[in-house]
Amino acid sequence: MKARVHVMLKDGVLDPQGEAVRHALGSLGFDGVAGVRQGKVIELELAEGTTEATVGEMCEKLLANTVIESYRIELL
Amino acid sequence: MKARVHVMLKDGVLDPQGEAVRHALGSLGFDGVAGVRQGKVIELELAEGTTEATVGEMCEKLLANTVIESYRIELL
Repeated sequence: MKARVHVMLKDGVLDPQGEAVRHALGSLGFDGVAGVRQGKVIELELAEGTTEATVGEMCEKLLANTVIESYRIELL
Repeated sequence: MKARVHVMLKDGVLDPQGEAVRHALGSLGFDGVAGVRQGKVIELELAEGTTEATVGEMCEKLLANTVIESYRIELL
């Protein structure tokens, strides 16, 4: 089975990478880009029967820094 | 309107970051993790009426390196 984890910086946490992308898009002539946030997506190939709770534990322990990042789990 | 872009390394392209995560999960006692791929997710706050084609252009020009990365666009 597969799981996909999205890790994004929490609202209010400065995102310099996203800001750089926003600026670059403007320079390239793309108007109307009001904001950009950049995060990580992690695709996991897991043993059958792995629960969402286990994936949540992986996020808490390794994949996300929960002080500044939030995560979302999608089982595929 | 919002758009979300997923950028992943193409199959066959070595993903050392994903490999490091796989190894670390094993060290933490999570068994059965057969593979990990790490990519980027970019959330864009766009002007109303921006088309998927425009977002595609952003991907081609800036957001993805299409030699080694593939991208997927989601309009929200």
